[in-house]
Amino acid sequence: MKNTTFPTAQDAEAAFYEALEASDLEAMMEVWADDEEIVCIHPGGSRLAGFADVRASWAEIFSGGRRLDVQVSHQVVLGGMMLAVHSVRESIAVKGEKRAAVPVSATNAYMRTGNGWRMILHHASPAPQGATQQRPAEPETPRVLH
Amino acid sequence: MKNTTFPTAQDAEAAFYEALEASDLEAMMEVWADDEEIVCIHPGGSRLAGFADVRASWAEIFSGGRRLDVQVSHQVVLGGMMLAVHSVRESIAVKGEKRAAVPVSATNAYMRTGNGWRMILHHASPAPQGATQQRPAEPETPRVLH
Repeated sequence: MKNTTFPTAQDAEAAFYEALEASDLEAMMEVWADDEEIVCIHPGGSRLAGFADVRASWAEIFSGGRRLDVQVSHQVVLGGMMLAVHSVRESIAVKGEKRAAVPVSATNAYMRTGNGWRMILHHASPAPQGATQQRPAEPETPRVLH
Repeated sequence: MKNTTFPTAQDAEAAFYEALEASDLEAMMEVWADDEEIVCIHPGGSRLAGFADVRASWAEIFSGGRRLDVQVSHQVVLGGMMLAVHSVRESIAVKGEKRAAVPVSATNAYMRTGNGWRMILHHASPAPQGATQQRPAEPETPRVLH
């Protein structure tokens, strides 16, 4: 049972990263489609499929008590009417620790459901430290594929 | 100028892996949309964007003279009318070498264009060796999100 409706894929993405930073499992699972075919790959991890397994993985991640600071940039939007794919760069740091933020490449896919947009895929993998991104001059302007 | 039309996203995906095994740059770039916003992440690599940079990366990969054997399995299809997202497991070996195949998780996105389906995103990352996949009993039957 979903309590929140995300009018756009961007809204769902914003809620995803807010839930990640807040270590809020219920908010995180509000973002995901309640479906057996959703896919989640955490950095270096194996592919998880289905709502129950994806939920369990986030529960484990959030159980450690760490709070994350996640900066999202370099968004590329590959958009459709019913399905949207976002490519972003995440920079993840643990709050209260002095270690450098870890760069992660993420592909996020969203589907338009009868009750707004929901995440259907999250594929995150380690990115090279300090890698030069393409066209870094415009990190704040989402690029849209027509 | 594209010479080949892929009637479905599955056709484009089959052509992608054929081109990868054949180290055939022209065939590989037939699969990709000729667009500035396409995205390609090779395992452990930084994100590449745009046709020219994606082409250059495949040219470099194919220039080594190695021939790859790529087994694709565990496909999950998140499909739409205009956009499709496929999650697959790749098992990549170098032909003529005895090293074990390397497991890779890949997310592939395709867009329906005026001239058939083209790849718009390929995100590949190392997967754990011997990781148990979800529901391994049905690797040959694509699972479709409705």
